[in-house]
Amino acid sequence: MDFDLDLSTDVLRRTPATLQTLLGGLAERWIRGAEGPETFSPFDVVGHLIDGEETDWIPRARIILSRGPNLRFEPYDRFRHRARNVNRSLESLLHEFAQLRAANLEVLRGWRLTPAELELPGIHPSLGPVTLRQLLAAWVVHDLEHIAQVARVMAKQYRDEVGPWVPFLPVLTDHEVPRS
Amino acid sequence: MDFDLDLSTDVLRRTPATLQTLLGGLAERWIRGAEGPETFSPFDVVGHLIDGEETDWIPRARIILSRGPNLRFEPYDRFRHRARNVNRSLESLLHEFAQLRAANLEVLRGWRLTPAELELPGIHPSLGPVTLRQLLAAWVVHDLEHIAQVARVMAKQYRDEVGPWVPFLPVLTDHEVPRS
Repeated sequence: MDFDLDLSTDVLRRTPATLQTLLGGLAERWIRGAEGPETFSPFDVVGHLIDGEETDWIPRARIILSRGPNLRFEPYDRFRHRARNVNRSLESLLHEFAQLRAANLEVLRGWRLTPAELELPGIHPSLGPVTLRQLLAAWVVHDLEHIAQVARVMAKQYRDEVGPWVPFLPVLTDHEVPRS
Repeated sequence: MDFDLDLSTDVLRRTPATLQTLLGGLAERWIRGAEGPETFSPFDVVGHLIDGEETDWIPRARIILSRGPNLRFEPYDRFRHRARNVNRSLESLLHEFAQLRAANLEVLRGWRLTPAELELPGIHPSLGPVTLRQLLAAWVVHDLEHIAQVARVMAKQYRDEVGPWVPFLPVLTDHEVPRS
Protein backbone atom coordinates (compact mmCIF):
# COMPACT_ATOMS: atom_id res chain seq x y z
CA MET A 1 0.00 0.00 0.00
CA ASP A 2 1.42 3.38 -1.00
CA PHE A 3 1.72 6.14 1.58
CA ASP A 4 -1.29 8.45 1.66
CA LEU A 5 -1.43 11.43 3.97
CA ASP A 6 -5.20 11.35 4.55
CA LEU A 7 -5.25 7.59 5.15
CA SER A 8 -2.35 7.99 7.57
CA THR A 9 -4.01 10.78 9.48
CA ASP A 10 -7.17 8.72 9.76
CA VAL A 11 -5.24 6.02 11.63
CA LEU A 12 -3.30 8.48 13.79
CA ARG A 13 -6.42 10.27 14.97
CA ARG A 14 -8.03 7.00 16.15
CA THR A 15 -5.26 5.82 18.45
CA PRO A 16 -6.17 7.81 21.59
CA ALA A 17 -9.80 6.69 21.39
CA THR A 18 -8.81 3.08 20.68
CA LEU A 19 -6.60 3.02 23.78
CA GLN A 20 -9.28 4.78 25.84
CA THR A 21 -11.79 2.11 24.81
CA LEU A 22 -9.40 -0.74 25.49
CA LEU A 23 -7.89 0.55 28.74
CA GLY A 24 -9.97 3.35 30.28
CA GLY A 25 -11.14 2.35 33.76
CA LEU A 26 -9.63 -1.12 33.48
CA ALA A 27 -8.33 -2.86 36.64
CA GLU A 28 -4.72 -2.23 37.66
CA ARG A 29 -3.88 -5.89 37.13
CA TRP A 30 -4.55 -5.55 33.41
CA ILE A 31 -2.84 -2.18 33.13
CA ARG A 32 0.37 -2.85 35.04
CA GLY A 33 1.37 -6.31 33.83
CA ALA A 34 4.28 -6.53 31.38
CA GLU A 35 6.02 -9.31 29.39
CA GLY A 36 9.17 -9.42 31.49
CA PRO A 37 11.91 -7.10 32.80
CA GLU A 38 12.49 -3.93 30.76
CA THR A 39 9.30 -4.46 28.75
CA PHE A 40 6.32 -2.13 28.64
CA SER A 41 3.03 -2.54 30.48
CA PRO A 42 -0.07 -0.92 28.90
CA PHE A 43 0.53 1.99 31.31
CA ASP A 44 4.10 2.33 30.00
CA VAL A 45 2.91 2.23 26.39
CA VAL A 46 0.63 5.22 26.88
CA GLY A 47 3.52 7.11 28.49
CA HIS A 48 5.79 6.13 25.60
CA LEU A 49 3.25 7.41 23.08
CA ILE A 50 3.11 10.73 24.95
CA ASP A 51 6.90 10.93 24.71
CA GLY A 52 6.54 10.39 20.97
CA GLU A 53 4.13 13.32 20.70
CA GLU A 54 6.42 15.61 22.70
CA THR A 55 9.86 14.61 21.45
CA ASP A 56 9.70 12.45 18.33
CA TRP A 57 7.36 12.66 15.36
CA ILE A 58 6.34 16.29 14.98
CA PRO A 59 9.62 17.68 16.40
CA ARG A 60 11.51 15.62 13.81
CA ALA A 61 9.16 16.73 11.04
CA ARG A 62 9.89 20.33 12.06
CA ILE A 63 13.63 19.69 11.68
CA ILE A 64 13.04 18.34 8.17
CA LEU A 65 10.78 21.22 7.17
CA SER A 66 13.21 23.82 8.55
CA ARG A 67 15.55 22.88 5.68
CA GLY A 68 18.31 24.16 7.95
CA PRO A 69 21.97 23.21 7.92
CA ASN A 70 21.50 20.57 10.64
CA LEU A 71 18.95 17.93 9.64
CA ARG A 72 20.00 15.47 12.34
CA PHE A 73 17.20 14.40 14.74
CA GLU A 74 17.67 14.39 18.50
CA PRO A 75 18.03 10.81 19.81
CA TYR A 76 14.78 9.48 21.23
CA ASP A 77 14.66 8.39 24.87
CA ARG A 78 12.52 5.24 25.05
CA PHE A 79 12.44 5.41 28.83
CA ARG A 80 11.70 9.11 29.38
CA HIS A 81 8.17 8.18 30.55
CA ARG A 82 9.43 6.03 33.42
CA ALA A 83 10.50 8.95 35.61
CA ARG A 84 8.00 11.41 34.11
CA ASN A 85 4.85 9.45 34.99
CA VAL A 86 5.63 7.92 38.38
CA ASN A 87 2.70 9.53 40.16
CA ARG A 88 0.27 9.71 37.25
CA SER A 89 -2.93 7.74 36.73
CA LEU A 90 -3.61 5.96 33.45
CA GLU A 91 -6.73 8.09 33.04
CA SER A 92 -4.73 11.30 33.14
CA LEU A 93 -2.17 9.89 30.69
CA LEU A 94 -4.89 8.82 28.25
CA HIS A 95 -6.38 12.30 28.44
CA GLU A 96 -2.99 13.95 27.93
CA PHE A 97 -2.15 11.71 24.99
CA ALA A 98 -5.47 12.55 23.31
CA GLN A 99 -4.83 16.28 23.69
CA LEU A 100 -1.23 16.11 22.44
CA ARG A 101 -2.19 13.96 19.46
CA ALA A 102 -5.07 16.24 18.46
CA ALA A 103 -2.79 19.28 18.63
CA ASN A 104 -0.07 17.54 16.61
CA LEU A 105 -2.53 16.47 13.92
CA GLU A 106 -3.68 20.10 13.75
CA VAL A 107 -0.07 21.15 13.17
CA LEU A 108 0.31 18.47 10.49
CA ARG A 109 -2.87 19.54 8.74
CA GLY A 110 -1.78 23.18 8.88
CA TRP A 111 1.38 22.38 6.94
CA ARG A 112 -0.66 21.30 3.88
CA LEU A 113 2.26 19.14 2.80
CA THR A 114 2.95 18.79 -0.90
CA PRO A 115 4.30 15.62 -2.55
CA ALA A 116 7.65 17.40 -2.94
CA GLU A 117 7.79 18.26 0.76
CA LEU A 118 7.11 14.64 1.66
CA GLU A 119 10.40 13.76 -0.06
CA LEU A 120 12.46 16.25 2.00
CA PRO A 121 15.32 14.63 3.94
CA GLY A 122 16.29 14.35 7.58
CA ILE A 123 19.03 12.41 9.34
CA HIS A 124 18.05 9.76 11.89
CA PRO A 125 20.81 9.48 14.54
CA SER A 126 21.21 5.74 14.00
CA LEU A 127 19.31 4.89 10.80
CA GLY A 128 20.78 7.65 8.62
CA PRO A 129 18.95 9.49 5.83
CA VAL A 130 15.16 9.32 5.88
CA THR A 131 12.38 11.31 4.21
CA LEU A 132 9.43 13.12 5.76
CA ARG A 133 7.15 10.57 4.07
CA GLN A 134 9.02 7.70 5.75
CA LEU A 135 8.85 9.51 9.10
CA LEU A 136 5.08 9.92 8.84
CA ALA A 137 4.61 6.29 7.73
CA ALA A 138 6.73 5.19 10.71
CA TRP A 139 4.51 7.25 13.02
CA VAL A 140 1.46 5.30 11.80
CA VAL A 141 3.21 1.93 12.11
CA HIS A 142 4.53 2.87 15.56
CA ASP A 143 0.96 3.54 16.77
CA LEU A 144 -0.24 0.21 15.43
CA GLU A 145 2.80 -1.56 16.88
CA HIS A 146 1.93 -0.30 20.33
CA ILE A 147 -1.77 -1.10 20.04
CA ALA A 148 -0.72 -4.64 19.13
CA GLN A 149 1.69 -4.64 22.07
CA VAL A 150 -0.99 -3.56 24.57
CA ALA A 151 -3.27 -6.38 23.42
CA ARG A 152 -0.42 -8.92 23.45
CA VAL A 153 0.80 -7.90 26.92
CA MET A 154 -2.72 -8.08 28.32
CA ALA A 155 -3.23 -11.51 26.73
CA LYS A 156 -0.05 -12.82 28.37
CA GLN A 157 -1.39 -12.03 31.83
CA TYR A 158 -3.71 -15.03 31.27
CA ARG A 159 -1.07 -17.33 29.82
CA ASP A 160 -1.30 -19.76 32.76
CA GLU A 161 -5.11 -19.61 32.81
CA VAL A 162 -5.91 -21.01 29.37
CA GLY A 163 -4.56 -24.49 30.12
CA PRO A 164 -4.11 -26.56 26.95
CA TRP A 165 -5.15 -23.70 24.62
CA VAL A 166 -1.62 -22.18 24.46
CA PRO A 167 -0.65 -23.65 21.05
CA PHE A 168 -3.90 -22.32 19.52
CA LEU A 169 -3.26 -18.80 20.82
CA PRO A 170 0.04 -17.70 19.27
CA VAL A 171 -0.19 -14.25 20.87
CA LEU A 172 0.84 -15.98 24.11
CA THR A 173 4.18 -17.03 22.66
CA ASP A 174 4.92 -14.01 20.47
CA HIS A 175 7.97 -12.00 21.58
CA GLU A 176 9.15 -14.55 24.14
CA VAL A 177 12.45 -12.75 23.69
CA PRO A 178 11.43 -9.08 23.83
CA ARG A 179 11.95 -7.37 20.47
CA SER A 180 11.05 -3.82 21.40
CA MET B 1 -2.60 -13.17 36.98
CA ASP B 2 -5.33 -15.49 38.26
CA PHE B 3 -8.58 -15.88 36.33
CA ASP B 4 -11.29 -13.49 37.50
CA LEU B 5 -14.76 -13.55 35.97
CA ASP B 6 -15.47 -9.82 36.37
CA LEU B 7 -12.05 -8.81 35.04
CA SER B 8 -12.57 -11.15 32.11
CA THR B 9 -15.99 -9.79 31.31
CA ASP B 10 -14.63 -6.25 31.43
CA VAL B 11 -12.22 -7.10 28.61
CA LEU B 12 -14.79 -9.05 26.59
CA ARG B 13 -17.31 -6.22 26.64
CA ARG B 14 -14.79 -3.73 25.26
CA THR B 15 -13.77 -5.62 22.13
CA PRO B 16 -16.63 -4.54 19.82
CA ALA B 17 -16.12 -0.87 20.70
CA THR B 18 -12.34 -1.16 20.36
CA LEU B 19 -12.71 -2.61 16.86
CA GLN B 20 -15.35 -0.03 15.97
CA THR B 21 -12.98 2.76 17.02
CA LEU B 22 -10.03 1.25 15.18
CA LEU B 23 -11.84 0.21 12.00
CA GLY B 24 -15.24 1.87 11.64
CA GLY B 25 -15.38 3.94 8.45
CA LEU B 26 -11.75 3.21 7.60
CA ALA B 27 -10.69 3.05 3.94
CA GLU B 28 -10.95 -0.31 2.18
CA ARG B 29 -7.18 -0.39 1.69
CA TRP B 30 -6.66 -0.62 5.45
CA ILE B 31 -9.52 -3.07 5.98
CA ARG B 32 -8.85 -5.57 3.21
CA GLY B 33 -5.07 -6.00 3.37
CA ALA B 34 -3.74 -9.24 4.89
CA GLU B 35 -0.28 -10.69 5.71
CA GLY B 36 -0.20 -13.23 2.93
CA PRO B 37 -2.28 -16.09 1.48
CA GLU B 38 -4.65 -17.78 3.93
CA THR B 39 -4.17 -15.02 6.52
CA PHE B 40 -6.87 -12.74 7.87
CA SER B 41 -7.51 -9.12 6.92
CA PRO B 42 -9.16 -6.87 9.53
CA PHE B 43 -12.45 -7.59 7.71
CA ASP B 44 -11.84 -11.33 8.10
CA VAL B 45 -11.02 -10.93 11.79
CA VAL B 46 -14.38 -9.34 12.54
CA GLY B 47 -16.10 -12.18 10.67
CA HIS B 48 -14.04 -14.72 12.62
CA LEU B 49 -15.04 -13.11 15.92
CA ILE B 50 -18.70 -13.33 14.88
CA ASP B 51 -18.19 -17.03 14.18
CA GLY B 52 -16.79 -17.36 17.69
CA GLU B 53 -19.91 -15.79 19.18
CA GLU B 54 -22.21 -18.04 17.17
CA THR B 55 -20.37 -21.34 17.27
CA ASP B 56 -17.54 -21.37 19.79
CA TRP B 57 -17.37 -19.81 23.25
CA ILE B 58 -20.90 -19.73 24.62
CA PRO B 59 -22.04 -22.85 22.74
CA ARG B 60 -19.08 -24.74 24.25
CA ALA B 61 -19.82 -23.33 27.70
CA ARG B 62 -23.39 -24.63 27.31
CA ILE B 63 -22.06 -28.11 26.57
CA ILE B 64 -19.98 -27.99 29.75
CA LEU B 65 -22.85 -26.68 31.87
CA SER B 66 -25.27 -29.28 30.47
CA ARG B 67 -23.26 -31.93 32.40
CA GLY B 68 -24.58 -34.37 29.80
CA PRO B 69 -23.04 -37.65 28.68
CA ASN B 70 -21.30 -36.03 25.70
CA LEU B 71 -18.98 -33.22 26.76
CA ARG B 72 -17.16 -33.08 23.42
CA PHE B 73 -17.22 -29.69 21.65
CA GLU B 74 -18.10 -29.35 17.98
CA PRO B 75 -14.96 -28.63 15.91
CA TYR B 76 -14.62 -24.93 15.11
CA ASP B 77 -14.52 -23.82 11.46
CA ARG B 78 -11.92 -21.04 11.20
CA PHE B 79 -13.08 -20.20 7.68
CA ARG B 80 -16.87 -20.20 8.15
CA HIS B 81 -16.86 -16.40 7.76
CA ARG B 82 -15.34 -16.53 4.28
CA ALA B 83 -18.51 -17.73 2.56
CA ARG B 84 -20.88 -16.23 5.12
CA ASN B 85 -19.79 -12.60 4.69
CA VAL B 86 -19.05 -12.29 0.96
CA ASN B 87 -21.53 -9.50 0.37
CA ARG B 88 -21.37 -7.85 3.78
CA SER B 89 -19.91 -4.46 4.68
CA LEU B 90 -17.50 -4.11 7.58
CA GLU B 91 -19.92 -1.69 9.21
CA SER B 92 -22.66 -4.29 9.28
CA LEU B 93 -20.28 -6.93 10.65
CA LEU B 94 -19.09 -4.60 13.42
CA HIS B 95 -22.70 -3.94 14.34
CA GLU B 96 -23.57 -7.63 14.30
CA PHE B 97 -20.53 -8.53 16.40
CA ALA B 98 -21.47 -5.91 19.00
CA GLN B 99 -25.00 -7.29 19.26
CA LEU B 100 -23.91 -10.92 19.48
CA ARG B 101 -21.26 -10.15 22.08
CA ALA B 102 -23.66 -8.14 24.25
CA ALA B 103 -26.21 -10.95 24.14
CA ASN B 104 -23.59 -13.57 24.99
CA LEU B 105 -22.30 -11.56 27.94
CA GLU B 106 -25.88 -11.30 29.12
CA VAL B 107 -26.13 -15.10 28.98
CA LEU B 108 -22.83 -15.43 30.86
CA ARG B 109 -23.93 -13.00 33.55
CA GLY B 110 -27.26 -14.83 33.90
CA TRP B 111 -25.46 -18.06 34.73
CA ARG B 112 -23.99 -16.52 37.95
CA LEU B 113 -21.17 -19.03 37.74
CA THR B 114 -19.78 -20.40 40.99
CA PRO B 115 -16.10 -21.32 41.52
CA ALA B 116 -17.14 -24.98 41.41
CA GLU B 117 -18.90 -24.54 38.07
CA LEU B 118 -15.78 -22.88 36.63
CA GLU B 119 -13.97 -26.18 37.20
CA LEU B 120 -16.51 -28.25 35.27
CA PRO B 121 -14.99 -30.19 32.36
CA GLY B 122 -15.50 -30.31 28.62
CA ILE B 123 -13.62 -32.10 25.86
CA HIS B 124 -11.94 -30.06 23.16
CA PRO B 125 -11.89 -32.05 19.89
CA SER B 126 -8.11 -31.73 19.50
CA LEU B 127 -6.80 -30.39 22.84
CA GLY B 128 -8.60 -32.85 25.10
CA PRO B 129 -9.95 -32.11 28.59
CA VAL B 130 -10.46 -28.45 29.48
CA THR B 131 -12.40 -26.62 32.18
CA LEU B 132 -15.01 -23.90 31.85
CA ARG B 133 -12.52 -21.51 33.50
CA GLN B 134 -9.92 -22.28 30.85
CA LEU B 135 -12.52 -21.83 28.10
CA LEU B 136 -13.47 -18.38 29.40
CA ALA B 137 -9.83 -17.35 29.81
CA ALA B 138 -9.17 -18.51 26.24
CA TRP B 139 -12.11 -16.37 25.05
CA VAL B 140 -10.45 -13.28 26.57
CA VAL B 141 -7.03 -14.13 25.13
CA HIS B 142 -8.59 -14.88 21.74
CA ASP B 143 -10.14 -11.38 21.65
CA LEU B 144 -6.81 -9.76 22.52
CA GLU B 145 -4.99 -11.95 20.00
CA HIS B 146 -7.22 -10.70 17.22
CA ILE B 147 -7.01 -7.05 18.28
CA ALA B 148 -3.23 -7.44 18.12
CA GLN B 149 -3.59 -9.14 14.74
CA VAL B 150 -5.69 -6.31 13.30
CA ALA B 151 -3.10 -3.73 14.37
CA ARG B 152 -0.21 -5.87 13.08
CA VAL B 153 -1.86 -6.54 9.71
CA MET B 154 -2.64 -2.85 9.26
CA ALA B 155 0.95 -1.91 10.15
CA LYS B 156 2.30 -4.31 7.53
CA GLN B 157 0.44 -2.49 4.78
CA TYR B 158 3.06 0.27 5.27
CA ARG B 159 6.07 -2.01 5.47
CA ASP B 160 7.57 -0.64 2.26
CA GLU B 161 6.78 2.96 3.21
CA VAL B 162 8.85 3.31 6.39
CA GLY B 163 12.20 2.93 4.59
CA PRO B 164 15.06 2.33 7.05
CA TRP B 165 12.76 2.17 10.10
CA VAL B 166 11.95 -1.55 9.65
CA PRO B 167 14.38 -2.84 12.33
CA PHE B 168 12.97 -0.39 14.88
CA LEU B 169 9.38 -1.50 14.22
CA PRO B 170 9.29 -5.22 15.05
CA VAL B 171 5.56 -5.44 14.33
CA LEU B 172 6.55 -5.34 10.65
CA THR B 173 8.47 -8.60 10.94
CA ASP B 174 6.29 -10.44 13.45
CA HIS B 175 4.59 -13.55 12.02
CA GLU B 176 6.58 -13.57 8.77
CA VAL B 177 5.54 -17.22 8.71
CA PRO B 178 1.83 -17.06 9.61
CA ARG B 179 1.16 -18.64 13.01
CA SER B 180 -2.62 -18.34 13.12
